[in-house]
Amino acid sequence: MSENTSRQERFDQGKDVLDRIDGEAGAKVIEALSDIAPELGHQIVAWGFGEIYARPGLEPRDRQLVTLGMLTALGGCEPQLDVHINAALNVGLTPQQIIEAFLHSSVYCGFPRAINAVFTAKKVFTDRGLLPLV
Amino acid sequence: MSENTSRQERFDQGKDVLDRIDGEAGAKVIEALSDIAPELGHQIVAWGFGEIYARPGLEPRDRQLVTLGMLTALGGCEPQLDVHINAALNVGLTPQQIIEAFLHSSVYCGFPRAINAVFTAKKVFTDRGLLPLV
Amino acid sequence: MSENTSRQERFDQGKDVLDRIDGEAGAKVIEALSDIAPELGHQIVAWGFGEIYARPGLEPRDRQLVTLGMLTALGGCEPQLDVHINAALNVGLTPQQIIEAFLHSSVYCGFPRAINAVFTAKKVFTDRGLLPLV
Amino acid sequence: MSENTSRQERFDQGKDVLDRIDGEAGAKVIEALSDIAPELGHQIVAWGFGEIYARPGLEPRDRQLVTLGMLTALGGCEPQLDVHINAALNVGLTPQQIIEAFLHSSVYCGFPRAINAVFTAKKVFTDRGLLPLV
Amino acid sequence: MSENTSRQERFDQGKDVLDRIDGEAGAKVIEALSDIAPELGHQIVAWGFGEIYARPGLEPRDRQLVTLGMLTALGGCEPQLDVHINAALNVGLTPQQIIEAFLHSSVYCGFPRAINAVFTAKKVFTDRGLLPLV
Amino acid sequence: MSENTSRQERFDQGKDVLDRIDGEAGAKVIEALSDIAPELGHQIVAWGFGEIYARPGLEPRDRQLVTLGMLTALGGCEPQLDVHINAALNVGLTPQQIIEAFLHSSVYCGFPRAINAVFTAKKVFTDRGLLPLV
Repeated sequence: MSENTSRQERFDQGKDVLDRIDGEAGAKVIEALSDIAPELGHQIVAWGFGEIYARPGLEPRDRQLVTLGMLTALGGCEPQLDVHINAALNVGLTPQQIIEAFLHSSVYCGFPRAINAVFTAKKVFTDRGLLPLV
Repeated sequence: MSENTSRQERFDQGKDVLDRIDGEAGAKVIEALSDIAPELGHQIVAWGFGEIYARPGLEPRDRQLVTLGMLTALGGCEPQLDVHINAALNVGLTPQQIIEAFLHSSVYCGFPRAINAVFTAKKVFTDRGLLPLV
Repeated sequence: MSENTSRQERFDQGKDVLDRIDGEAGAKVIEALSDIAPELGHQIVAWGFGEIYARPGLEPRDRQLVTLGMLTALGGCEPQLDVHINAALNVGLTPQQIIEAFLHSSVYCGFPRAINAVFTAKKVFTDRGLLPLV
Repeated sequence: MSENTSRQERFDQGKDVLDRIDGEAGAKVIEALSDIAPELGHQIVAWGFGEIYARPGLEPRDRQLVTLGMLTALGGCEPQLDVHINAALNVGLTPQQIIEAFLHSSVYCGFPRAINAVFTAKKVFTDRGLLPLV
Repeated sequence: MSENTSRQERFDQGKDVLDRIDGEAGAKVIEALSDIAPELGHQIVAWGFGEIYARPGLEPRDRQLVTLGMLTALGGCEPQLDVHINAALNVGLTPQQIIEAFLHSSVYCGFPRAINAVFTAKKVFTDRGLLPLV
Repeated sequence: MSENTSRQERFDQGKDVLDRIDGEAGAKVIEALSDIAPELGHQIVAWGFGEIYARPGLEPRDRQLVTLGMLTALGGCEPQLDVHINAALNVGLTPQQIIEAFLHSSVYCGFPRAINAVFTAKKVFTDRGLLPLV
C-alpha cells in the first residue's frame, strides 16, 4: 500500500474487488452514474472497494453480514439491499443465513425494516431460482 | 420447539442464551428495567434471546456482526453498542475485526456513525485492557 | 399467561388478535412471507400480536396512534403504513383523526414524512371510498 | 381562525396551549433558546402549539401517544422524550400506559429504541415519585 | 411582520414564496393534498414558506443546499428530493453543484443515500434536458 | 489528479484541507482515533478531505451548509455538529446564518432535531464568545 499509485490504478484495483463481490449488479450502478455523477462512481469503486473492501481484516462474507445489517436498519435502501443480497450469495452466505440475518434484525430494528428486507430478498431469490427455501 | 412451555421456561431458556452472549451487561439492563418495565425485560430475554438468538441458523459471531452493523446505522444507540461490542468479544470476534466492521460501516453510513461507534469501542476496549490495538 | 402453551397455540392466539386488528391485510403479509421467511411470519403473529398487542394495558386504538407515529417517523415504511392506516380504521379511529395525527407529526418529523404518510392514507381512503374528507 | 391576528397574539395563544400541555418544561426550552434562536422558540410556540396542538381534531392524550411513538422511533431525542413523557402525564396518560406504549414500540422500532425511551421515563418517573410501577 | 394578518393573507404570502422557489411542483403537492389534508397543505404554504422560507437571513440557494443535505440524509424522501432538486435549479444552483452536494453527502451519510439522491437527480435532469453533465 | 501519489501524500493533501476547514477540532478527532482505529483516521483525512472536500465544485461554505443539514437530519451526531458548527464559522458562515439554517431544518426534520442542533451551537458559540446573538 505504500507504493505510488495513479488514480486509474486505484480505480482498477477497486473494480477487481467490486466485480468479485457485487458481480454485474455493481458494474451496472457505476454505469448508470456515468453520465451524471462519474466521480461518485469512481469513488465507490476506488475508495469503497479499492480502499475499504480490499482490506484483509474482515472476510468478504463478514463484510456482507455487517452490510445487510446496516442497509436493513437504514431503511429506504432497497436498491442497495438488492445488490448486497446478491453480493452475500456471491461470497458464500446461504439464502437461509441471509433470511436468518433479517429475522435477527427484527430484534434491533423492528418488524417493518425486517419485512422490507425480506421482500427484497424474495425478488432476488426468485430471480436466482432459489425459492421456496426449505 | 413443539412441546408445551411455560412463560417462565421460555424466560429461563432465553436467560441462558443472554448470559452466554451478553454476559453481565445484559443482566444489568434487565435488572434496571425491573422496577419500571419488567415486561420489556421479560420479552428481551424470552423472545429476543430465547426465540431469536437461540436459533441455530446463524452463528453467534455472525449475529453480532449483523447487530454491530444495525446499531451503528441506527445512531443514538451507544448504550446498546457498548453491550454488543462486549458481546462481540465474548463470542469470539477480535477487537481488530470489530474496528474493521466500523471502518467498513463508513462506506454505508458515513463517517459520523462510524466515529461514534469507534469511540464507544474505545471505552469498552479501555475497560477490558485491550488498547492500544496493534 | 402462566399456563403451558405450545408454539402452535401461541400462534393461534396471535392470529386472532392480528385478524381483529389488521384484517385481511395482515394475513396477506404473513402469507407472502411463507415461502421465504416463515419464521418471521410466525414471530410477527405469535410474538407481535400474541404477546404484545394482546396485552390489556393499552387500547387497540391507542396502539395504532403510537404505531402511526412510529411508522411516519421511521420513513420508508409505506407498505406498513398502508396496513396500519387500515388497522386504525378497523379499531375505531376516524379518517379525520388519522389525518390529524399525520398533520401533528409534521411538528416532530417535518413535512416530508407527514406528506408521505398522507399520500399513503390517500390510497387507503380511496380504496375504502372515504374521500373526499369533509 | 379567520380573524386577523398579530404575531404576538399567535404567540400568546400558543403559549397557553404549551403551558397546559408541557408545563414548566416547555417554557424552559423556549427560555433556553432566547439568546441564540428566539425565532425558533417563537415558532415552536406560535406554530407548533398555537396552530397544530390547538386544533380540536385530536385529543391532547392522543397527540402525546403519537408524539411518544415518533420520538421513540427517531432516536437521539431523549431531551424531547423527557418533556413529552411529562406532557403525557400532564394530559392524563398513566405511567403504565406510557410504559406499555414503549413496550409496544419494540415491535416496530426494535428493543434499543424502546429501552432508551424507558430509561428516559425512569428519570421522569423518579423525579415525580412514581416508581416502582406496580 | 408585526401587523395583523388573516389566515388567508398568511397563505397568500407563503404561496408567493412557494411559487418562486418550488414552481409548479410545489403547487401540485398542495393540490394533491386538498381533498384529504387541506390543513397540511395550508401549513406547508403559510408556515413553511410564509414564515420560514420568507425570512431574509439565508439566501434561497443556501436554503436549498441545507434542504438537499437533509433530504438525502433522511432517506425515503425521493418525492421531496425531486421537488427540491427542481427548486435548487430554480434558485440558481447549477446541476454540477447539486451533484457535487450529493457526492459530498457520501462522506456523512454513506454511498446508498448519495446514490439514491443522484438517481432522483437523474430523473429531474433528464426531464429538463440537462444530461449528460460535462 | 492524474499523477501518481503515495498514501502518505494523499494523507498530507487531505490534512491541509482538514486543518483549513475544521481547524484544531478535526485534528483532535484524528488523534483520538490513533490508538484504536488509525485507518479510520487516515481515511477521514485522505479520502473525506483529500478527495472530496478538496474538489473545487462546491465552495467550502456551501459544503458546510449541506453538512449542517445532514448532521441535523441524522440525529445523534452532536459531536460532529460541534466540529462542523466550528467549521462553518471558520469558512465564513455567520452565527446568524447557522442558526437560520437550523430554524430552516425544522420544516424538513421537525423541531426536536432543530432544537438539538441549536443547543449544540449554543455550546460552540458560548466557547467562542458569540452570545447573545443580536
